[in-house]
Amino acid sequence: MTLAMDERRVALKLAYDGTRFFGFQRQPGTVTVEGSLMTALAKVGAIRSPRECGYRSSSRTDRGVSALGNVVSLRTEFPLASLCSAVNSELEHLWAYSAVDAPEEFNPRAARQRWYRYYLAKSRQDRELLNELSSRFIGVHDFSGYSRKDKRNPMRKIDSIEIADAGMFYAVDFRAESFLWNMVRRIVWMVNEGSCGRIPLDAIGPSAAEKPVRVGLSPPEYLVLMDIDCGIEFEVDKRARVGMLQTLERSMRDSGMRLRFSEDLLRSLE
Amino acid sequence: MTLAMDERRVALKLAYDGTRFFGFQRQPGTVTVEGSLMTALAKVGAIRSPRECGYRSSSRTDRGVSALGNVVSLRTEFPLASLCSAVNSELEHLWAYSAVDAPEEFNPRAARQRWYRYYLAKSRQDRELLNELSSRFIGVHDFSGYSRKDKRNPMRKIDSIEIADAGMFYAVDFRAESFLWNMVRRIVWMVNEGSCGRIPLDAIGPSAAEKPVRVGLSPPEYLVLMDIDCGIEFEVDKRARVGMLQTLERSMRDSGMRLRFSEDLLRSLE
Repeated sequence: MTLAMDERRVALKLAYDGTRFFGFQRQPGTVTVEGSLMTALAKVGAIRSPRECGYRSSSRTDRGVSALGNVVSLRTEFPLASLCSAVNSELEHLWAYSAVDAPEEFNPRAARQRWYRYYLAKSRQDRELLNELSSRFIGVHDFSGYSRKDKRNPMRKIDSIEIADAGMFYAVDFRAESFLWNMVRRIVWMVNEGSCGRIPLDAIGPSAAEKPVRVGLSPPEYLVLMDIDCGIEFEVDKRARVGMLQTLERSMRDSGMRLRFSEDLLRSLE
Repeated sequence: MTLAMDERRVALKLAYDGTRFFGFQRQPGTVTVEGSLMTALAKVGAIRSPRECGYRSSSRTDRGVSALGNVVSLRTEFPLASLCSAVNSELEHLWAYSAVDAPEEFNPRAARQRWYRYYLAKSRQDRELLNELSSRFIGVHDFSGYSRKDKRNPMRKIDSIEIADAGMFYAVDFRAESFLWNMVRRIVWMVNEGSCGRIPLDAIGPSAAEKPVRVGLSPPEYLVLMDIDCGIEFEVDKRARVGMLQTLERSMRDSGMRLRFSEDLLRSLE
């Protein structure tokens, strides 16, 4: 493979509504985040093919999981200042909103820290218990009970778990260099069950004395990959921003209206 | 046509998410509110056919318009206490939530008052101007400038227009015995343009001195038929209510989550 004259490696920051895709990874015949991105990049002439562009991704989010700041990297000759807006014009529910130069060896997989947020619907949780149970997972642990089995090292270090009030939700923020498969959703399921009093408290924790029969999986639609620290400074693309503002205002109005409708109907049933 | 032994006339109260249907009126080959209701009624055995059940409707809402309390009437032998829950089990985005006995001559079209609410997205409106301009439409007027032309009498009486704060929206409540086609959406368009300073103020009103070139139409997705006073007491069906609560909680969580995602993404662009 030969490098073209102006071809260089770039890092792209991506946001997407995970409910609109059948997962992240390319799969023939299904609409995935990667597949849609590659099609758009090829369509605007930024890449010839996924194979030839030296594509690398950071986090392969599960089907249904959204992202505000996933990171991919590839080589392109396309002018950096118009790459995001050109690609976005070919995309729906997926936006590239920052494109920066990166060294050829840059691999977004090797991130310093990943930040996931789970929007946990408020119900009967005991808020203090939610804090206490979550804190048991912070630090270095063997998380093999909180992931599907694979060959990876099950030791992980969770830097922090923070819980904030967010209207009808608790925003549960997880920060770690890396997570095992389904790890966040399994921990959320566990602390939620525990804080609602449905599981004995001493069965909860990465190395709990008494394991419950089964660690469940909280639904993916409420999980968002917020940001990844790859050691690169991303700056918001101004042109991409303008296009996104309109789309986002529209979808906020639509979601807000759907919410109103349900609330009003609920009131009609009283 | 012969009336069966236990057949009697009932009035049904309906709620529906108008964005999920291609309008209200039955139309072969498209999913409409009436069409879906008729199919469900026939499927559970409550009617043999739409023709034979003496069906009457109150308000044929436009495509995209939702309802919390539209009213229809028909004859059925089906037990009243399980009619709503049976029908709802066959429906999505459309719910019958009250079924009561009605006299055979009952026609929901002849209503005492209809209440529509428009959720107007807040933007640059002058709130006081919004109030003042809306008040111009209250009372008896010739609304032919605010409707598509048809053979109906263009004189209408608007009992009240009330504007309340509703988060990202203004809830604009219209009450009248009846409205002309598109009348609410045209009035909303007009007072919104005026209160944003895009149309001269003396061009606004049912009998304005100077008419603007064109009275526009505000989008249908934000209009809700809230209730109709047909002179009948509706009581919420307990079984239907239980089923609806779960669905509504779920859709509130989903809308709330979509709203969060857009808000968070907007913040990422700052």
